Amino acid sequence: MLPVRFIEALSAALPASRIVLDPDVMAAHSRDQAAWAPEGRAVALVRPESAEQVRAVVAVCGEDRVPVVPRGAGTGLSGGANAVDGCVLLALDGMDRILEIDRDEQLAVVQPGVVNDSLRAAVAGHGLWYPPDPASSPWSTIGGNAATNAGGVCCVKYGVTRDYVLGLQVVTGTGELVRLGRRTRKGVAGYDLAGLFVGSEGTLGVITEITVRLLRLPRETPRTIVGAFDSLVGAGRAVAATAAAGITPSALELVDRYCLRAVDDWRNMGLTDLGDVLLLGRIDTGDELEAAALQGCFDAAGAVWSTRSTDAEEAEALFSARRLAYPALERLGPVLTEDVCVPRGLVPEMLARIERHAETHGVHIANIAHAGDGNLHPLIVVPAGDDEARTRAQRVFEAILDDAIALGGTVTGEHGVGLLKKRGMHAEVGEDVLALHRAIKSALDPAGIFNPGKII
Amino acid sequence: MLPVRFIEALSAALPASRIVLDPDVMAAHSRDQAAWAPEGRAVALVRPESAEQVRAVVAVCGEDRVPVVPRGAGTGLSGGANAVDGCVLLALDGMDRILEIDRDEQLAVVQPGVVNDSLRAAVAGHGLWYPPDPASSPWSTIGGNAATNAGGVCCVKYGVTRDYVLGLQVVTGTGELVRLGRRTRKGVAGYDLAGLFVGSEGTLGVITEITVRLLRLPRETPRTIVGAFDSLVGAGRAVAATAAAGITPSALELVDRYCLRAVDDWRNMGLTDLGDVLLLGRIDTGDELEAAALQGCFDAAGAVWSTRSTDAEEAEALFSARRLAYPALERLGPVLTEDVCVPRGLVPEMLARIERHAETHGVHIANIAHAGDGNLHPLIVVPAGDDEARTRAQRVFEAILDDAIALGGTVTGEHGVGLLKKRGMHAEVGEDVLALHRAIKSALDPAGIFNPGKII
Repeated sequence: MLPVRFIEALSAALPASRIVLDPDVMAAHSRDQAAWAPEGRAVALVRPESAEQVRAVVAVCGEDRVPVVPRGAGTGLSGGANAVDGCVLLALDGMDRILEIDRDEQLAVVQPGVVNDSLRAAVAGHGLWYPPDPASSPWSTIGGNAATNAGGVCCVKYGVTRDYVLGLQVVTGTGELVRLGRRTRKGVAGYDLAGLFVGSEGTLGVITEITVRLLRLPRETPRTIVGAFDSLVGAGRAVAATAAAGITPSALELVDRYCLRAVDDWRNMGLTDLGDVLLLGRIDTGDELEAAALQGCFDAAGAVWSTRSTDAEEAEALFSARRLAYPALERLGPVLTEDVCVPRGLVPEMLARIERHAETHGVHIANIAHAGDGNLHPLIVVPAGDDEARTRAQRVFEAILDDAIALGGTVTGEHGVGLLKKRGMHAEVGEDVLALHRAIKSALDPAGIFNPGKII
Repeated sequence: MLPVRFIEALSAALPASRIVLDPDVMAAHSRDQAAWAPEGRAVALVRPESAEQVRAVVAVCGEDRVPVVPRGAGTGLSGGANAVDGCVLLALDGMDRILEIDRDEQLAVVQPGVVNDSLRAAVAGHGLWYPPDPASSPWSTIGGNAATNAGGVCCVKYGVTRDYVLGLQVVTGTGELVRLGRRTRKGVAGYDLAGLFVGSEGTLGVITEITVRLLRLPRETPRTIVGAFDSLVGAGRAVAATAAAGITPSALELVDRYCLRAVDDWRNMGLTDLGDVLLLGRIDTGDELEAAALQGCFDAAGAVWSTRSTDAEEAEALFSARRLAYPALERLGPVLTEDVCVPRGLVPEMLARIERHAETHGVHIANIAHAGDGNLHPLIVVPAGDDEARTRAQRVFEAILDDAIALGGTVTGEHGVGLLKKRGMHAEVGEDVLALHRAIKSALDPAGIFNPGKII
């Protein structure tokens, strides 16, 4: 590769103002929020304004086999957006226009840089709802959400990003700008290539436009059900009981004492007075009997206290405490974020194993969880600069992944593989399935330029 | 290829009783229900009893590059299961065991030959529900449903087969038996290979086991809303109005006068007295106001009469008339089945175009539709033996596909591409996207043995 000639070729692909070579700015765009995931050195950062500019950048990179690392807001937690050596960082956050909201067909068409909450607010004005709600929704982009198949709080009832992506426009490994998927409610004309690109973490191409399916904005006042437990495993038993009872909450979140304390220390919300471990449930059907049944599950599993209400302000305070848990913990030191997902009946067992690892290895593990999905986020918090603790934390990180696999679960429920979960994912799927991944990667990205070294 | 040596190799792969060489039996298994789709001559029919036997058969075929054509119940409508010359027909209907129903995790694990209605009945005994309900549900298999990503009546609210497939066991093109997907509620460990195999019509591998997600059996008594219209386009306007009103029925079916008459001629149900074109809606939330709103949409769009009730028997009679429409029409002559899907607001325009084609070309077109999805099934009925009419029918068939594409729709909403929709699908997706299909096909089926000539 000849850097000068290459930069000249880039300059023909998009305006000079859209090419950034300042090392500090490049460094600031060279990683996501995953602690300790390695990052490489980029040769350029580009900020295209259109799909055509993305296509031109990919063509230039393809010619010289320069790696392309696409990124949205950089809120990922697995290192998927981290720079690799010699790459072009393709920042899509500037392509942030909502192109269309079709109320009658219940769909929206957006550029990849549209922020999740912005889309939600815009469609709410039409009485519509875009359900996927990762905790990063105030900052993360729909492009990044699609690339990682992001989840969130309401997934337990409403599904994940892939369930809402109808169609994509992508730049392919052969440099074409193509449309995958559809605008209609149903369609089986060929392979589900849009679904394949969702969750592929930028390794198969670059997403330049997304068509999402929308639901009607819920009309019922949601009921919030809160239960306080004196142990993690006790709360886990309530989760298993809820699943066994066939209750379908629209949220079932767990927040433990470490998180409550961290949020209190930061925002003084008085959460630690509520209990050691909280379960926050929501029933959005307007069915008072189901809300009572959920509270009954909490009580029968040994809740210290429980309550239910339709008070929106109170509910918002509790759910925002859950959202604040992660940034509150980050104030205490680097956080190694897990994302395992296990069968719901095994949530108590998985939580018990996590607690044992914390004790055995002498590390602090805080727990938040999309508990109703069996999707747990044990957060391993390490004092800044303590290298020995860091080594122990990394050992626990891998041990928890192995436990999830042993319980029939997965190493990543919603954050993606990126760099941090590669060993775990390979252990989970096995060599034969990894070979299928490699075959697809080679087929769609023959030059191997898209986000190399991620996932596989 | 040496037939004798090849048959000997097959005999090592599975018991002699599972290999059928009788030409009549082979011929009877050489096609699905798609009228006029070409069929080839198979060299053998095999009926494996286990995934391991499927693997062994594929290995034998792979060695000699003998095409493998998998089939379930043969109820497909696009020719996807039709024999190609020199193929082995791989009949999976004998692998029909339900391996597991897990009430707490709300999932079931089944072999591919389990009939859709059998699964629905079995899980209902546990208070659970498998939503996808193609009209073929009394006969079609879950394996075939997964291979074609089958839809049905309740898709308008509950989605299609892919939305319920969590994991698959498949035999790959390199002869391995692998597991794709997961058992947990969420998971993003690698590419969505299970989703890619769903709807791939047997062209990427053979499905030997399916893990499906289940819902809780609905508890509310559904409300049935019926509207009679004096024209197809009038009924289409009611469909568009329903979409615009943001109503979410759990079924919204259209049946026209040709179908009503055909069912009456066969079963004497007195349907023709009800009106020219019927819309059958269902609201399953227990929300009387929403049921009234749906009826209001029918009335405002010009319904001749309308009614709503919670009478289960009455509702069952009407919906069974809709299911009987297709076999009733088949009694009148060969039926060329369309499966276009258009944006819901364009249902009236698409129906008007279909009517014009019928008039212009002098062909009989009956209409049934999953109208709420925009998924229309114009059925072109031809008098048996009338070759001239057949030519006109085939011309109209292609013209309707082109109209669907022109309206931003798809040539196939739920039946699949098979053989009949190849030209239409290629016109819909374009050469660049077709190239992506070919690349994936080559990557996963390097020997090109799986259902060659279908889709691409």
